[in-house]
Amino acid sequence: MPTDLAVFHRWFEERRAAHAYRVTRVPLSELDGWSGDPETGDLRHRSGRFFGVHGLDVRVAGREVEHWRQPVIDQPEHGLLGILVREFDGVPHCLLQAKMEPGNVNALQLSPTVQATRSNYARVHRGRAVPYLDLFTTLGRGRPLADALQSEQGAWFLAKRNRNIVVRTDEDVPVLDDFRWFGPDEIGRLLAMDDVVNMDTRTVLSHLAADAAPAAARFHGRPLHTLPELLNWLTHHRTARPTVRRRIPLRETTGWRVTDDEVSHEEGRYFRIVGVDVRAGSREVSAWSQPLLAPCGQGVVAFLVRDFGGVPHVLVRARAEAGTLDTAEIGPTVQCVPANYAHLPPDRRPRHLDTVLDAASGPPGRVLFDVVHSEEGGRFHHARNRYLAVRADDDVPPEEGDGFRWATCGQLATLNRYGGLLNVEARTLLACMAFIP
Amino acid sequence: MPTDLAVFHRWFEERRAAHAYRVTRVPLSELDGWSGDPETGDLRHRSGRFFGVHGLDVRVAGREVEHWRQPVIDQPEHGLLGILVREFDGVPHCLLQAKMEPGNVNALQLSPTVQATRSNYARVHRGRAVPYLDLFTTLGRGRPLADALQSEQGAWFLAKRNRNIVVRTDEDVPVLDDFRWFGPDEIGRLLAMDDVVNMDTRTVLSHLAADAAPAAARFHGRPLHTLPELLNWLTHHRTARPTVRRRIPLRETTGWRVTDDEVSHEEGRYFRIVGVDVRAGSREVSAWSQPLLAPCGQGVVAFLVRDFGGVPHVLVRARAEAGTLDTAEIGPTVQCVPANYAHLPPDRRPRHLDTVLDAASGPPGRVLFDVVHSEEGGRFHHARNRYLAVRADDDVPPEEGDGFRWATCGQLATLNRYGGLLNVEARTLLACMAFIP
Repeated sequence: MPTDLAVFHRWFEERRAAHAYRVTRVPLSELDGWSGDPETGDLRHRSGRFFGVHGLDVRVAGREVEHWRQPVIDQPEHGLLGILVREFDGVPHCLLQAKMEPGNVNALQLSPTVQATRSNYARVHRGRAVPYLDLFTTLGRGRPLADALQSEQGAWFLAKRNRNIVVRTDEDVPVLDDFRWFGPDEIGRLLAMDDVVNMDTRTVLSHLAADAAPAAARFHGRPLHTLPELLNWLTHHRTARPTVRRRIPLRETTGWRVTDDEVSHEEGRYFRIVGVDVRAGSREVSAWSQPLLAPCGQGVVAFLVRDFGGVPHVLVRARAEAGTLDTAEIGPTVQCVPANYAHLPPDRRPRHLDTVLDAASGPPGRVLFDVVHSEEGGRFHHARNRYLAVRADDDVPPEEGDGFRWATCGQLATLNRYGGLLNVEARTLLACMAFIP
Repeated sequence: MPTDLAVFHRWFEERRAAHAYRVTRVPLSELDGWSGDPETGDLRHRSGRFFGVHGLDVRVAGREVEHWRQPVIDQPEHGLLGILVREFDGVPHCLLQAKMEPGNVNALQLSPTVQATRSNYARVHRGRAVPYLDLFTTLGRGRPLADALQSEQGAWFLAKRNRNIVVRTDEDVPVLDDFRWFGPDEIGRLLAMDDVVNMDTRTVLSHLAADAAPAAARFHGRPLHTLPELLNWLTHHRTARPTVRRRIPLRETTGWRVTDDEVSHEEGRYFRIVGVDVRAGSREVSAWSQPLLAPCGQGVVAFLVRDFGGVPHVLVRARAEAGTLDTAEIGPTVQCVPANYAHLPPDRRPRHLDTVLDAASGPPGRVLFDVVHSEEGGRFHHARNRYLAVRADDDVPPEEGDGFRWATCGQLATLNRYGGLLNVEARTLLACMAFIP
């Protein structure tokens, strides 16, 4: 309904106008409160909290590239990402907030009801209290619909996890400035727009995939494989290749340049670590400095979709990344930054990437969605992925192998409840599959 | 049926007679292939594989004891514990083996079809190939019924996990010496006997709890709490107390004595690390030396059982131990070594311990099972726990709090599929609840 979106846009622009903010790029060496360790070069905050950046040495037996080093963001504490749900006229609505993040392309996006690191809500930086927090941290205050520790980008974070929680309330909670209730249809329409629904909202929404789904038909039907078969396939890939990760000084991250200004790859690939100064009115504190990870290209994250026995399945892949806590998680069919493969021979090009891009530019009706979303603006600078689901019944053979497996979205939703099984990119796709009609 | 057990005992004694073995206690400094690091005192094998012993510094905010140090076994590689299942006359049977472990009180116990560390099956010690292994490591060879990475003793291991896998086959696999098919009734009777079914078998059996259960009535019925409510309660306790674990040199483990002979607690509590020489005929290699962890007392591990709305529930507790990978897992009502509490005031005595012991010595009919089982004889020396489930409808108030929660065994079986949610002691209790009639 165009009316609804007009209402949303008016509200969103109002919120944008209400907040003055300015993000300025500064050299890492000039970040207030942050410094490089004189010995190791590791970046850290003077409080010892929030997060740090150090080096990682990774060895994976039997992989194409068996050994590499890279910088990694280390954030050992668990944050809390919570969405409050309440029924209006029998329809469950989600309380979301318009929130500025320094790394967002458009500054303001839709965040969960609560999006807070532990440093945040333990008030390390002596900011304001986090609103609605006690609805999530007090056992028995509402009715929990989901609660799990979930990973985030394994290529950039070392074993980082956040608590993803959905609580349903019947309390008449006040709607503060910057907050608004969103119904499932509106969420679906916003998820189909570029850079509006932030990563933290998307991952929490993935936990409502099986229930609140306007696109529920995608979630039901008899799967090709049983759940124990999927767990067997995942555990097989988790244990197949012994992986040794070792923390190393940032200065010893071979292949990378560490300067006063930034950390970057010698060939300009993958990402850079840069510094920003932030002046803002809408955050817990009104000014701060921090490093951000800036990827060197837009990614492609996609599900291939195909029917088996009339039931839609998506092709998932067991995906191991440098920082993945449990070696491998269930990932999308395609997840890559194509630019990082430009220097490699064609046979090293990611499997199924061209099938996805061809289908997306082919005859209409094959694309379920095709939208650009931003990743965590609190840690990443303009990190954007093109998320797609495309039907490719005739182009993709049913064979699996190479770590690929066909699963239904219903199965992914079941696995997702327990945490640590689906990676964050797959969770965004799952939320889109559920809410985009 | 007594006949069956007679057959079992004859077979088991035969296997015992077939194997010559001798386990001799030796000082740690005289272990062949093992040495203490000259700087740290850490124990390790010259190959760098198998496992090691070092120190651990643990800080848990807001706990009764907020800071302590202890030795810990570090075994980063995942082993494989697999049970092969095959139907005979419509009844699924498990292929188990009589296997000697140096730490077993009675040397021989029943192991899973495959019980192998990665060093084992990658043949680091150049032993014999592990029989039946490829039935578990080849995807699609049989029909997987369960496959998960599961933790082991968090008080003694640092984040150790083993792959627990059950595969059903229709192949006419040969039954080698030391191996035998066991039906569910026989397994139930053996689980009710002391020190026969080893820990690795029990944890893999816990994955068959919902299916193969002779005691299935204990697994069904409407639960007091929904699954999301249980996950919410667990995640709450996983994130409530920030925990910092830091590896330290064994020599710096304050409160512990490290000598050439053994590692022990200054007050004689908790456990010792001792060395053994093993001469055996039935293992992959016929002679080896290794350290073992010897607990300083027998433990009590128990479920309190109570009906709600006519449906049996067990009282579980969110349990955080030094080495637990994910801060806390779902544990039994009671899990402790009473001797470790002898020096403390009565109000520090473990909750519900006396209720369990009183019920066990009270009127008959309240005890579902009361049996002593051994923990992993490959790492622990005479580590025995008394496992009980006792009905205590009138003695235990329905209130929860303090990290306790009522759950049905069916719910625990569901959670158990995904790995990392139930601790190993709770998994033994779950297997006993399922198989002991």
